[in-house]
Amino acid sequence: MKKQSVPLAEAYRLLEPGPVLLLTTADPRGGRPNVMTLSWHMMMEFEPPLVGVLVSGRDDSFAWLEANGECVLNIPTADLAPQVVACGNSHGRRRDKFRLTGLTPSPASRVGAPLIDECYASLECVVHDRGWVARYNLFVLEVVAAWAEPRKRPRTLHHRGWGEFAVAGSVLRLPSAMK
Amino acid sequence: MKKQSVPLAEAYRLLEPGPVLLLTTADPRGGRPNVMTLSWHMMMEFEPPLVGVLVSGRDDSFAWLEANGECVLNIPTADLAPQVVACGNSHGRRRDKFRLTGLTPSPASRVGAPLIDECYASLECVVHDRGWVARYNLFVLEVVAAWAEPRKRPRTLHHRGWGEFAVAGSVLRLPSAMK
Repeated sequence: MKKQSVPLAEAYRLLEPGPVLLLTTADPRGGRPNVMTLSWHMMMEFEPPLVGVLVSGRDDSFAWLEANGECVLNIPTADLAPQVVACGNSHGRRRDKFRLTGLTPSPASRVGAPLIDECYASLECVVHDRGWVARYNLFVLEVVAAWAEPRKRPRTLHHRGWGEFAVAGSVLRLPSAMK
Repeated sequence: MKKQSVPLAEAYRLLEPGPVLLLTTADPRGGRPNVMTLSWHMMMEFEPPLVGVLVSGRDDSFAWLEANGECVLNIPTADLAPQVVACGNSHGRRRDKFRLTGLTPSPASRVGAPLIDECYASLECVVHDRGWVARYNLFVLEVVAAWAEPRKRPRTLHHRGWGEFAVAGSVLRLPSAMK
């Protein structure tokens, strides 16, 4: 197979990540909650479920996550792509991104941050390890409650950079012992 | 939207990860190289590109990556699903997984570990940060060379557990300033 050299600055587009997430946080001062997009995350343990997330410091969400130690990871599907992009393109502080996008917050069961009603799944999380927040903006989260619509083929969005998303398509099932 | 509670042990299946990878390492003693499957990874920096990868300690690859400080992340597409599953299901040490799967190693440009010829893209990596190897089996890698076939729609495989993969499907493009 003939491969060509790829500029290192474009390497991240090859590792198109897990589904784009909408991370919600509560305002520590009691105002409206915030929501930001997030593509750089990974599972780190099955049980209790740990998820590593890289949170940009350009958004209020970073400070609110540090202050509260809580957030919700909401998983949107392809029908919400315009809202995801609108949210990802508004980095300004003090903007009401729920109003901007028309998304609907609803109360979570274990944390102060809201679920997003329109998203097909939501993971309520508490901060488990802050050890690499200063070094990489990396929070290790523990999922304390998980919610999902029972959809068979959620068409999640995988960001390849600059507004290009791979949409999860067909499902392939092979006999496997891989958890 | 009606969501149902999901058992925490199943939460990882919602965050179906970035594309399944085939990680190759060189044998520090000069024997045949090794290859293992890997689904838990994330980008951590654009430039120089940093990638966090969680490497199971059950495989020789972990020890060889620790010893050499080098590996290659190869990205297979859906046509290689049987080889990916065969590789993922053989955790035994000292097995020649290249022979088992019929995959073809070829020399990399910057590291001793091989590229896999059949994979559509390959990232040559050196270990950048071992600080969380002991805590989480997490290696932070720096990509030092990247190779890809110029395919427009690579049908990468996203593992949802137990041999179920979401195949990257249609591509959605929206105007966005999100890198």
